[in-house]
Amino acid sequence: MKVGIVGASGYTGAELMRLLAAHPGVEVSLVTAQSYAGRRVGDLYPHLLPYADMVYRPFDPDRAWEEAEFFFVALPHGESMEAVAALRERGARVVDLSADYRFSRPETYEKWYGKPHSHPELLGEAVYGLPELFRGEVARAALVAGPGCYPTAALLALAPLLSRGLCRGEVVVDAKSGVSGAGRSLSLDTHFPQAEGSVKPYGVGVHRHTPEMEEVMGRLIGDGEVRVIFVPHLIPMSRGILATCYARTEGSLGPSELEELYRDFYRDCPFVVVLPRGSYPQTKDVCGSNYCHLGLYADGEGRVICTAVIDNLVKGASGQAIQCLNLMMGWEETTGLLALGVFP
Amino acid sequence: MKVGIVGASGYTGAELMRLLAAHPGVEVSLVTAQSYAGRRVGDLYPHLLPYADMVYRPFDPDRAWEEAEFFFVALPHGESMEAVAALRERGARVVDLSADYRFSRPETYEKWYGKPHSHPELLGEAVYGLPELFRGEVARAALVAGPGCYPTAALLALAPLLSRGLCRGEVVVDAKSGVSGAGRSLSLDTHFPQAEGSVKPYGVGVHRHTPEMEEVMGRLIGDGEVRVIFVPHLIPMSRGILATCYARTEGSLGPSELEELYRDFYRDCPFVVVLPRGSYPQTKDVCGSNYCHLGLYADGEGRVICTAVIDNLVKGASGQAIQCLNLMMGWEETTGLLALGVFP
Amino acid sequence: MKVGIVGASGYTGAELMRLLAAHPGVEVSLVTAQSYAGRRVGDLYPHLLPYADMVYRPFDPDRAWEEAEFFFVALPHGESMEAVAALRERGARVVDLSADYRFSRPETYEKWYGKPHSHPELLGEAVYGLPELFRGEVARAALVAGPGCYPTAALLALAPLLSRGLCRGEVVVDAKSGVSGAGRSLSLDTHFPQAEGSVKPYGVGVHRHTPEMEEVMGRLIGDGEVRVIFVPHLIPMSRGILATCYARTEGSLGPSELEELYRDFYRDCPFVVVLPRGSYPQTKDVCGSNYCHLGLYADGEGRVICTAVIDNLVKGASGQAIQCLNLMMGWEETTGLLALGVFP
Amino acid sequence: MKVGIVGASGYTGAELMRLLAAHPGVEVSLVTAQSYAGRRVGDLYPHLLPYADMVYRPFDPDRAWEEAEFFFVALPHGESMEAVAALRERGARVVDLSADYRFSRPETYEKWYGKPHSHPELLGEAVYGLPELFRGEVARAALVAGPGCYPTAALLALAPLLSRGLCRGEVVVDAKSGVSGAGRSLSLDTHFPQAEGSVKPYGVGVHRHTPEMEEVMGRLIGDGEVRVIFVPHLIPMSRGILATCYARTEGSLGPSELEELYRDFYRDCPFVVVLPRGSYPQTKDVCGSNYCHLGLYADGEGRVICTAVIDNLVKGASGQAIQCLNLMMGWEETTGLLALGVFP
Repeated sequence: MKVGIVGASGYTGAELMRLLAAHPGVEVSLVTAQSYAGRRVGDLYPHLLPYADMVYRPFDPDRAWEEAEFFFVALPHGESMEAVAALRERGARVVDLSADYRFSRPETYEKWYGKPHSHPELLGEAVYGLPELFRGEVARAALVAGPGCYPTAALLALAPLLSRGLCRGEVVVDAKSGVSGAGRSLSLDTHFPQAEGSVKPYGVGVHRHTPEMEEVMGRLIGDGEVRVIFVPHLIPMSRGILATCYARTEGSLGPSELEELYRDFYRDCPFVVVLPRGSYPQTKDVCGSNYCHLGLYADGEGRVICTAVIDNLVKGASGQAIQCLNLMMGWEETTGLLALGVFP
Repeated sequence: MKVGIVGASGYTGAELMRLLAAHPGVEVSLVTAQSYAGRRVGDLYPHLLPYADMVYRPFDPDRAWEEAEFFFVALPHGESMEAVAALRERGARVVDLSADYRFSRPETYEKWYGKPHSHPELLGEAVYGLPELFRGEVARAALVAGPGCYPTAALLALAPLLSRGLCRGEVVVDAKSGVSGAGRSLSLDTHFPQAEGSVKPYGVGVHRHTPEMEEVMGRLIGDGEVRVIFVPHLIPMSRGILATCYARTEGSLGPSELEELYRDFYRDCPFVVVLPRGSYPQTKDVCGSNYCHLGLYADGEGRVICTAVIDNLVKGASGQAIQCLNLMMGWEETTGLLALGVFP
Repeated sequence: MKVGIVGASGYTGAELMRLLAAHPGVEVSLVTAQSYAGRRVGDLYPHLLPYADMVYRPFDPDRAWEEAEFFFVALPHGESMEAVAALRERGARVVDLSADYRFSRPETYEKWYGKPHSHPELLGEAVYGLPELFRGEVARAALVAGPGCYPTAALLALAPLLSRGLCRGEVVVDAKSGVSGAGRSLSLDTHFPQAEGSVKPYGVGVHRHTPEMEEVMGRLIGDGEVRVIFVPHLIPMSRGILATCYARTEGSLGPSELEELYRDFYRDCPFVVVLPRGSYPQTKDVCGSNYCHLGLYADGEGRVICTAVIDNLVKGASGQAIQCLNLMMGWEETTGLLALGVFP
Repeated sequence: MKVGIVGASGYTGAELMRLLAAHPGVEVSLVTAQSYAGRRVGDLYPHLLPYADMVYRPFDPDRAWEEAEFFFVALPHGESMEAVAALRERGARVVDLSADYRFSRPETYEKWYGKPHSHPELLGEAVYGLPELFRGEVARAALVAGPGCYPTAALLALAPLLSRGLCRGEVVVDAKSGVSGAGRSLSLDTHFPQAEGSVKPYGVGVHRHTPEMEEVMGRLIGDGEVRVIFVPHLIPMSRGILATCYARTEGSLGPSELEELYRDFYRDCPFVVVLPRGSYPQTKDVCGSNYCHLGLYADGEGRVICTAVIDNLVKGASGQAIQCLNLMMGWEETTGLLALGVFP
């Protein structure tokens, strides 16, 4: 199948190419980029050897639709909206990696992303692309909104508790991310000498992934709402997210019940690994891979700490998008995604 | 004044030497070490130029007392107990950097450190060496127990709230530490290829700094107790601790009130810097220095997030020990400690 | 085909497992380890998911020969000798990753590795496993000695010049390696706080890879000998080697001739990439992959600088060993090895 | 004495402030910056506590001359030329940290920096500010050109050999630098995810520090010229330079003669440390300090390898500039510069 990547010059676009090179059912037939239009992929990314001589092209929906039948859109928030709509209009199936189609209500988008949504009519058809929670919907979807990297980690860490009605009210999500999460665009915070050898919080109380987590968690508990207190931190590493999630359970869940609950919940999820009790995950164990490792703690008095690691560019973005593609096409969910973490 | 460092071959011992080289009132006249006895300081630490040809000696309390009048004890937990007692018996004033004299009750020590305390009679005279909170006691003390690195950060982050009775019950302390916090002893977790490019939680629910924080926080609120939910994380950097502390306040403290409270509380504390509202600290800003930077957040509905950074080897250990020395000697608190953070 | 990994608890053993998990023609049926015998693979390496419940077993050649027909031996230098001989005796084909079978003369081994060679009779049949230079011999071999990581990089950087007789006499190889090259064993030099944020030379003038490079380079020029001045450096990263090689050519080779020479020489080598003129490689471009990227410089007056990057654990060890396996079995050389570098 | 820093918003400007805060004879009375004019120092650099509320001002030579009597100019190459000339015209003594006044001949500057020199008449009075080699000239100078960071390391590594006429012709300088050497300006090469976990050569054969080394080395050997083959590399660390220098000596200098030669040459140089034979330096030993550590190797057959480490921002820039200030003022050379390296 011919696949196009719209906005392919950034890190998630490059990661889609890296992963799709190992996918047996797909050929990348089109890569678009705005400022790099006309440049060779190999000039930007020497590691993308099979695509070295492919040339980034400006995005034109008609032409794109001629050259590919399935699209990943990896444009910045706000720019994705239109491209997705143009492709959907022509009948293409799309996985969008931006935040533009993640919310059910346009008001939430406008409030947190600072601009009105130009295609609110598509929000209804867009499915939140976290296969472990919404596998059926994803399989039937024509438009999938790939989850944010932090929400992916936090939701996988807390979903079993929330879905079983064991935790309500408020959770603390203290997340640690590698710097690639900020993308390929330059900024002082991601300038090497500023970030190396240092850790810092950012976006305290105002990070845009907060409402995304709250909306999906609300859906998981069924009724009522979940308040998320979220602080992301920049860690001096390139890849990886660790979410350390603090929750209160009703009743006194013990460690073995907790473990059992999680193993049961993720029984049919090939990418989620529940570590043995007393073990906690490190990000490098999943580096470059689509896996999520979970480590759990319960003090038996209602305090639960759930930790999750993912590679922000794979399970937190491009790998998960391909997992959705596989489901949408009726292929094996793991197709092209079984590479193990590159450790050490 | 002649000063001895007992257990000088580890990182906190070396850091004491580095800092004392810039202290005008002190001469390091003795450095002891067990397995490195007979070796030159310069063999282990080429950066400690003024001490390059000093030789580590085995610890003998009588001889030590002849060669110095003030001691820093930087031995591992459990070993410190006896050395401190032997030095105190001879009349020496001591700052102990281990955990051995941090608790008021020997039962707490035994429970968390796994062995009975051999000198419970000294626990009463030992003062908890966090000058910002106990300056008067430190100044009058003959034996000071230097706080743990995590408790230093968490206590400075939360003390104003706790002392003013604004926060009770339970706090979440999610801390991130550089690897030097684990000391110079080798272990798989601190083997470079395991720790580089990765972040991981450890000691979840069982870290020994938990009871230390709880005891001191309890003292700050005056009555009742504070429950600390504490998760430390290993960060791929050598130095620095960031404590991200989540608390609930009674009443709806706003951001400006919070800032004012902290500025007021730390008015006379030369090493504590409250950042402007909306700013959050990064560890590298205090690298190599004795400063603590604080960044504050309040949502106006009772949720407060207090972040603190320190250099774990300086304000979290050796620098703070020298700060205590200064107070104990009646010197200016900042003597020898005003070097700025090495950024970037 | 059933494959055994002897000495599977170290980093090269783990990397063999990671890579073989993606190899369609091979099943890992046996993993041995001495001190970890009885332990689960998953306890040491949580990322090796398909092998999580496999158990390390002590090495016994008879039993090994029952359970597998092809072996990778990833034991330390000196220990490999006997294991390889025992397996060969039983008829097994072997790729040895140690230095034990790399030299043609037992005297060289004894001089540099400090012990006599117990099986000099096997040195004659052992083939140096650098497929780009000795593809035919490797394909016919029953015993392959996998090259050292530094020699792999330096030889690929210089082989075209040497083989064509353009460079003789003396070369400077200034190499930079990630810390995983030192293996999983603990040492002060590889303790995180010592290595992070720092670069240092080591083994100046005495590194054991020097005679290995000199022997193979001598073979390439046909007659006479090449003197290698070699300084390796420890770089604060986990994976990757960069070799910066300084050579003098006879005659005044220009940049375009140099490029052409290299492109021609490596025309049929799927893992060697000659970068466009003016471009130089970085190690992360090949992280986790079996590729080698080359960047070339000639000043037109006889000075040539050839730079090569590889992943020390893949092309510098386990990946190259599998490349040899493929050739030995008559399979496509690239089978299971086409994963791209994990960048960024 | 009142000192002004022209171009104080970059890393070398900030480092001057950090170091001068510990200097007893100097008050920083003026800091200028173009794009940050009007901003508080504390906004850019939270670690520069004593200057937090100082405000960057646009550079005006008349006003500057009113507010300070001595100037450090830390502007980019090409911009420094005019500012220095304007200050000199008014009678100010100046240490310039740019390359603008490093060469004796304007042609060299124009060839390598791509623009004509606007004040060639000042080149004659400018002294190359490497005190270990030109202490007397620096002490008498009114205008000092601070050396480049790479030349500082390479010259200190090779000066004894060159000055004593033991080495001629050609040297290879393979240098490794932390990323702060590229300054505070953003670029893709210094974007964290590009540089982390990776090493790469750059400026191969064309780096502008080449002619600087060649000119000074030529001066050291007295007659004839030295050809420098120079390759700098970007290392994933913030601070530090290691220069590994390969030279040929006439005659067969042995290791102990080499060591003696160096110890003798640097006898009166408080910042240069010759390590014991067999020891090699690492950059972190001098992090944040003005020291240079040297490690030496001789094979007894004419091959010599000299390694030097410095902190590129201190001995390679701002610290060395202050060392020159001290000499120019007749103060003790080490004033304010004795802080030890921050290790680990």
